[in-house]
Amino acid sequence: MSAGLRVAAERVLAQCRQLALITDVPGQTTRTFLSPATRQAQTLVAGWMEAAGLVVQTDAIGNLRALPRGVARSTPRLLIGSHLDTVRNAGAYDGVLGVLLAVALCALLAPGEVPFAIEVIAFSDEEGVRFGRPFLGSLALIGESVPGTVADSNGITLADAVARFGHQPTASATLDAAAFAYFEFHIEQGPLLEAEQRPLAAVSSIAGQTRQRLTFRGQANHAGTTPMHLRHDALAAAAQWMVELEARALADPGLMANVGSIEALPGVGNVVPGEVILSLDLRHPEDSARHAALDAITPAAHQAAARRGVSCSMETLLDQPAVLMDEALTAALVRAAGQCGYDARPLVSGAGHDAMILARRIPAAMLFLRTPAGLSHHPDEAVLAEDVEAALATGLALLRNLSPSQG
Amino acid sequence: MSAGLRVAAERVLAQCRQLALITDVPGQTTRTFLSPATRQAQTLVAGWMEAAGLVVQTDAIGNLRALPRGVARSTPRLLIGSHLDTVRNAGAYDGVLGVLLAVALCALLAPGEVPFAIEVIAFSDEEGVRFGRPFLGSLALIGESVPGTVADSNGITLADAVARFGHQPTASATLDAAAFAYFEFHIEQGPLLEAEQRPLAAVSSIAGQTRQRLTFRGQANHAGTTPMHLRHDALAAAAQWMVELEARALADPGLMANVGSIEALPGVGNVVPGEVILSLDLRHPEDSARHAALDAITPAAHQAAARRGVSCSMETLLDQPAVLMDEALTAALVRAAGQCGYDARPLVSGAGHDAMILARRIPAAMLFLRTPAGLSHHPDEAVLAEDVEAALATGLALLRNLSPSQG
Repeated sequence: MSAGLRVAAERVLAQCRQLALITDVPGQTTRTFLSPATRQAQTLVAGWMEAAGLVVQTDAIGNLRALPRGVARSTPRLLIGSHLDTVRNAGAYDGVLGVLLAVALCALLAPGEVPFAIEVIAFSDEEGVRFGRPFLGSLALIGESVPGTVADSNGITLADAVARFGHQPTASATLDAAAFAYFEFHIEQGPLLEAEQRPLAAVSSIAGQTRQRLTFRGQANHAGTTPMHLRHDALAAAAQWMVELEARALADPGLMANVGSIEALPGVGNVVPGEVILSLDLRHPEDSARHAALDAITPAAHQAAARRGVSCSMETLLDQPAVLMDEALTAALVRAAGQCGYDARPLVSGAGHDAMILARRIPAAMLFLRTPAGLSHHPDEAVLAEDVEAALATGLALLRNLSPSQG
Repeated sequence: MSAGLRVAAERVLAQCRQLALITDVPGQTTRTFLSPATRQAQTLVAGWMEAAGLVVQTDAIGNLRALPRGVARSTPRLLIGSHLDTVRNAGAYDGVLGVLLAVALCALLAPGEVPFAIEVIAFSDEEGVRFGRPFLGSLALIGESVPGTVADSNGITLADAVARFGHQPTASATLDAAAFAYFEFHIEQGPLLEAEQRPLAAVSSIAGQTRQRLTFRGQANHAGTTPMHLRHDALAAAAQWMVELEARALADPGLMANVGSIEALPGVGNVVPGEVILSLDLRHPEDSARHAALDAITPAAHQAAARRGVSCSMETLLDQPAVLMDEALTAALVRAAGQCGYDARPLVSGAGHDAMILARRIPAAMLFLRTPAGLSHHPDEAVLAEDVEAALATGLALLRNLSPSQG
């Protein structure tokens, strides 16, 4: 490894840690779509992009877009990006690392060293925390924008949120015809690479996922006077279903099921819950298996509800098929890693990424970095400096090998 | 029934409905301890008290205290009261009805008609919504105040909340030595009187209750990449325990168990919940049976947690023994109802009431009014005008029969 890559890796890590201090919620790292903290983070990142010789624009959905000065519309363009928004109480690297590695690569390349332009994209929303719908940034880029009428928990519509955002858009949120491929660095967010003692892996495909909002409706009543057998307890129904959901996912090695948010109403200790609203996140590498699981889970919810005189309804917020990464680009990535001495054999990603949205339009590939303890979406999320260095070396080799026709 | 009682009953019901419009949360009835809506409700009720010839003071914990003008400290005093605070999204009658019936009785009695003074008390907190601890008003009255350092969900301490409240206290929150008994009207909040087609019942005893806050601590992680068997899902642990809790309470006819509030953190769909905080409300007419249930429920929580590498801790917020109402006063109440043509045979109350706090110091009795459909702590909570009339008639008869020495 060159000393230059080590220095660049350390700088990227320092930038990630600096960004983690910019938050909507003091004491943690939480940056949601177009929030005040997001504006502040974008200003910081735009400065770093400019220092790397790039010209920065904000597009109409709030993505940061950075290109070298004077790139013609017709110049073949490789997109490299990830996102700047976070989950609640997040770590420092999910998304952010991919953006800053892209900026670092631009700074490491000599002018004219590769026969294409690199556009760095920092997506404004991937996690979907604010509007309960993920990938707002990359969906807009490929022309599949979420309707501007969806509202956040404060009743602010997506269209209003964009209008109120501090940066005026200087570009439309569109995919330029000259863009021939998309590439994304991201932490693995799982324990597999650590178990295999590998710093890197290409991604063969991204598991499909279904996200639903379930509402159990019973009847609120006094918790001290309503006989147990006469209650219509929405939370008891939800609890039975959650136990069955967990058991089913444990029994199916490919299935991931999560209830991440739950609200019981009216939410008072001495009142039987009359309504429960919760989230379901269901993933599987194979779409047919995911749908089969959903076909079993749905009646289980209705049965747990009906047993208690409770009703249950489901609203599907996302039904994202499994997505294959581009085979040729992924093979080029594995070869580039091999040139640098790394075994980056592909694995399946359980997490969704912007790359799976871009893959609907252009060839896309991803490189995962090992995640210590597999811990992510958590303040203790980490990444090793040596792995960041390995990713930079692999990225440089990929760029130097790549010709626009390979995209 | 006299036309006067019918008119008085209708007025009490109209007052309850008017108060139900005063709320901290538009569109529902929610008035928590010392909130802006509570201040507004107190102003309205104080006006009605004054119209009934009473002089109103606010005591140091925010209770309204109303006495006829010029009552000497040594004059024997019967306390009649209930509370003005509500659960979230409450009905119109829980607590409020008892306060307004007391005011109506004062208005119906001729001056000097009974050989004691009546002090009407509208307690500032019985439900415990704001500080997670009930009976703040009556506990202060009997000299067992909750420490001023406890904080609400916004971090405001009890002492601060009292200091910020709009009404300056004009009386200390103490029980006068001349107070010889406490009497409370309240809706049953359960289905028993309706099933027995009776408008009224005296209360023989109030079931004991335990309130706990349980915290399940696991580890937040990515919901798409963390294998199911490696998760430390705090919500899955809580769900299993809730299912076991419900099964146990269903199997024990005297046991009431409720989880009314639950919060999962960080509360995002694609993050495995790292922490769950929930409430337990456990009641039984017999203290030994309640404690035996708790002794079984506690290890069940630890086991559901340990199975998932999650920890569980319990904090007891209330451990309220079952409380007997005063035998002589209750018998007097049943006799008074009988004189008016009503069968008010006593029943056990599953709900806690201010009367059980007062019973620690002075003889206390309660009269329940039938609750249509047993529905309470719910916007559709109701009471029948004829039952309110029956309660007024019984209350008048009791007062006319009562001598201070009976207390």
